[in-house]
Amino acid sequence: MKSRTYEIMEKAKPKDIASLIFDWSLMLLITLNVLSIVLESFASVALAYKEFFIVFETTSVIIFTLEYMLRLWTSDLKYPNKYKMVSLLTFAFSTMAIIDLLSILPFYIPLATPIDFRILRVLRLTRILRILKIGRYSESLALIGRVLKRSRSDLLVTLFITFLLLLLSSSLMYFVENPAQSDKFPNIVSSAWWTIITLTTVGYGDVYPITILGKILGGFIALLGIGLVALPTGIISSGFMEEIRIKQLKEGRESQVCPHCKLAISEDWE
Amino acid sequence: MKSRTYEIMEKAKPKDIASLIFDWSLMLLITLNVLSIVLESFASVALAYKEFFIVFETTSVIIFTLEYMLRLWTSDLKYPNKYKMVSLLTFAFSTMAIIDLLSILPFYIPLATPIDFRILRVLRLTRILRILKIGRYSESLALIGRVLKRSRSDLLVTLFITFLLLLLSSSLMYFVENPAQSDKFPNIVSSAWWTIITLTTVGYGDVYPITILGKILGGFIALLGIGLVALPTGIISSGFMEEIRIKQLKEGRESQVCPHCKLAISEDWE
Amino acid sequence: MKSRTYEIMEKAKPKDIASLIFDWSLMLLITLNVLSIVLESFASVALAYKEFFIVFETTSVIIFTLEYMLRLWTSDLKYPNKYKMVSLLTFAFSTMAIIDLLSILPFYIPLATPIDFRILRVLRLTRILRILKIGRYSESLALIGRVLKRSRSDLLVTLFITFLLLLLSSSLMYFVENPAQSDKFPNIVSSAWWTIITLTTVGYGDVYPITILGKILGGFIALLGIGLVALPTGIISSGFMEEIRIKQLKEGRESQVCPHCKLAISEDWE
Amino acid sequence: MKSRTYEIMEKAKPKDIASLIFDWSLMLLITLNVLSIVLESFASVALAYKEFFIVFETTSVIIFTLEYMLRLWTSDLKYPNKYKMVSLLTFAFSTMAIIDLLSILPFYIPLATPIDFRILRVLRLTRILRILKIGRYSESLALIGRVLKRSRSDLLVTLFITFLLLLLSSSLMYFVENPAQSDKFPNIVSSAWWTIITLTTVGYGDVYPITILGKILGGFIALLGIGLVALPTGIISSGFMEEIRIKQLKEGRESQVCPHCKLAISEDWE
Repeated sequence: MKSRTYEIMEKAKPKDIASLIFDWSLMLLITLNVLSIVLESFASVALAYKEFFIVFETTSVIIFTLEYMLRLWTSDLKYPNKYKMVSLLTFAFSTMAIIDLLSILPFYIPLATPIDFRILRVLRLTRILRILKIGRYSESLALIGRVLKRSRSDLLVTLFITFLLLLLSSSLMYFVENPAQSDKFPNIVSSAWWTIITLTTVGYGDVYPITILGKILGGFIALLGIGLVALPTGIISSGFMEEIRIKQLKEGRESQVCPHCKLAISEDWE
Repeated sequence: MKSRTYEIMEKAKPKDIASLIFDWSLMLLITLNVLSIVLESFASVALAYKEFFIVFETTSVIIFTLEYMLRLWTSDLKYPNKYKMVSLLTFAFSTMAIIDLLSILPFYIPLATPIDFRILRVLRLTRILRILKIGRYSESLALIGRVLKRSRSDLLVTLFITFLLLLLSSSLMYFVENPAQSDKFPNIVSSAWWTIITLTTVGYGDVYPITILGKILGGFIALLGIGLVALPTGIISSGFMEEIRIKQLKEGRESQVCPHCKLAISEDWE
Repeated sequence: MKSRTYEIMEKAKPKDIASLIFDWSLMLLITLNVLSIVLESFASVALAYKEFFIVFETTSVIIFTLEYMLRLWTSDLKYPNKYKMVSLLTFAFSTMAIIDLLSILPFYIPLATPIDFRILRVLRLTRILRILKIGRYSESLALIGRVLKRSRSDLLVTLFITFLLLLLSSSLMYFVENPAQSDKFPNIVSSAWWTIITLTTVGYGDVYPITILGKILGGFIALLGIGLVALPTGIISSGFMEEIRIKQLKEGRESQVCPHCKLAISEDWE
Repeated sequence: MKSRTYEIMEKAKPKDIASLIFDWSLMLLITLNVLSIVLESFASVALAYKEFFIVFETTSVIIFTLEYMLRLWTSDLKYPNKYKMVSLLTFAFSTMAIIDLLSILPFYIPLATPIDFRILRVLRLTRILRILKIGRYSESLALIGRVLKRSRSDLLVTLFITFLLLLLSSSLMYFVENPAQSDKFPNIVSSAWWTIITLTTVGYGDVYPITILGKILGGFIALLGIGLVALPTGIISSGFMEEIRIKQLKEGRESQVCPHCKLAISEDWE
């Protein structure tokens, strides 16, 4: 029975009706939950349907809690090569399990944070792509995941360079603009808000330099922002190209047979 | 006669004068229609030339209606392998035919929508590229079309990820900023307007975070916006590279020689 | 003597001192001209040094006129295979000659345009890269030129698609927002200003939608703007890759000799 | 002893504890210095902990001065092939040494600049990546460095083109908008601020055209901004692709077999 529970809760095999129903019901419940959070943010709706939202939230949390417990219970089947206790902990500290826990915990322990952690349930919606029958989207998701993973260290170094640039630009701008408009650039942290909005080329226009020196510096920082866009784009582009090449290499090697002599064209060719 | 009508309405063959005249007259009429909609939007022009616009619109709709009917009539020649009824329905539900219908229907059935569907005629202008004699532009359009089609599932998954990100970011921003400026972030849907304008790096500046936590979160979302630009750019770049490689492969095959038998590898290989 | 004049005015050969002096003096004069236009735009400077600017402008125009005439005179040496009259006209209607003429003409025939055509002299500064001894920058300029030329038809089609998108988006936005804010969206042409600033992700914030429908439409248009950035980037990226591949192919073919058997590795290999 | 001092100050070898401690203490001190500059920018914090900041700054500068002198002293070990005096000067005029000097000098010679040069210490934080044990990040930094170095002349030419474009656009915009809003476009230099913020697609919205001609021109400049983003992105993308190809070539050579003599083509080939 435990094994069957595990099977139902995992991604459904093509003809496992019970598992398919479980997958889609769960996705529907999560979608409805996200929708209810959005609707509840309208003060008038929250007031008019107060009771409904309480009932729906309670029901949802009960189901999610049950699901979480069943997943804890069947965790030894997920990691068959590990000890029971180890597999339980491995599961409990996996990203997905922590998100699950965080999204039900506030119901039991009311926290004084301004953020409603229930919204983390949105993250569970990525599963929709995995359970979609049309494999193409699932493949695309995996491709994007592989590209980002492969480029991870390059992207992180770009982020680190951006962070140093942010520190330097914010400080310089603070020194230049603070005397002229001390309300907009009161300190380096406030100046960093201007810098990040300029480097990412968003440019709200709530803060901008007004001195000549500040405008010259601002122009250079805006130009550097172009570079900040170009670097990750270049990294990700080459990541996609690399993935395509690997795919071709795999496909090509198996099928490259000369039509004349019928000999396989060895890896060293081409 | 039906066959000749079909020939004239389709893309003109090099020396088919009647068909060429039909193609260019239609393009001219559509261009004039689009221009008249633009001019009519000026209140003073609309008032001064009221009668002219009515006459021009009536004439145009009559011509477009006639053209639509002729296309319906000759639809069996467009899909020669299908039954008459099937080819009629296939044509009637094609994107282009629906656009055609939508752009003349409001004349017959006045609708209470704020949008004037006549503007959909703009979409018909893409045909200009197809009837242009200079094949290079037509080829470029086909190339861009192939790249977008090839990258479609990757781009759709990127859009889906963007949508989840939008939901999560909007909700978090709503929780953080609503207490400080409830007029700018009254609910999650309003918050989504800020998020989309930030993620796309447009940044109007009508709404922006003012709390410290909101600014930190806003900075991260702006950085994610860079990623949102980098992902489709990378996907499309690799799509173009792939197209170039395919073209080269086709050209290259003719000159490839097998290292074993030294015979040229013909086009039918691989 | 005519032949020597032509030699001096063309790009200098390594040891042609007279030609080198001519090249650099002309570049200096153009730079000073551009600088003087910038300085003259400061009302106080223009007033204080009024006479100086008049003298400098008169001298410059005399030199430029002389240069233009000499170039007309030596045009038959530039195109040795053509008839004298044909080469004169070919030169006179070349882009560079038209720019030269436009930048001196306003001195002789005062025009009532708001734009001061003397600024076109900026365009002549691109010659700096060509006369720079360090060939690397000249090569880079040629590379960028080749890439843009190769991608021209793809980029033009992208521009055409952008134009249709602009027409459609502007019209839709006008229909949606005009009733709510008729001062910001008075007609489709005004609406186009909002659209172009949104599609290019600039986003000044002088105009933005305020209705719900307008914000939804605006969000979609902003997302399309990402695509508008991604398409030319992809086209240009693949153009650069293509240039690199062509360069490699050229270099590779000549030098690919097997170190063991000393036979050239034929084109069909690799 | 001098040799040992040099060893400690250079990047630590795996098991050189003293050198490791030196590396990490220095990084910690620099980080604390940057943090202290950020904190000091808060007027209230600067006032409350005035004495602490003075003590900390004095201590830091003493340590940095000592370090700078030791580096000067051991410069002959850094460049063993040069004369003592030459190696001293080579070191003293290296970028890193100038940054070091600039960041301690203001303590000894109070300068009347608005910019606090101590912030240049941020630049020293790039060393963190080099001393990190995890070589992957160090490799990524080297990769990004190589790509930027390889694309340097292309990027510089793009910058030069941007500069000419900036001059031309600013001047045209000044001629068009100055009569309508002489406070926002008082001269070409002020107009350049608008142009750079538009070309980089930042778009604060503090300055924008209001005349019809200005808006048309502004729309074209905004579109050119897309090109300004696309060019460096394309250059950097192809730079990354080139690096990947070079890596593959190096790896590939070991397994390449000549089609004529069937012998493996050794690494020394090409």
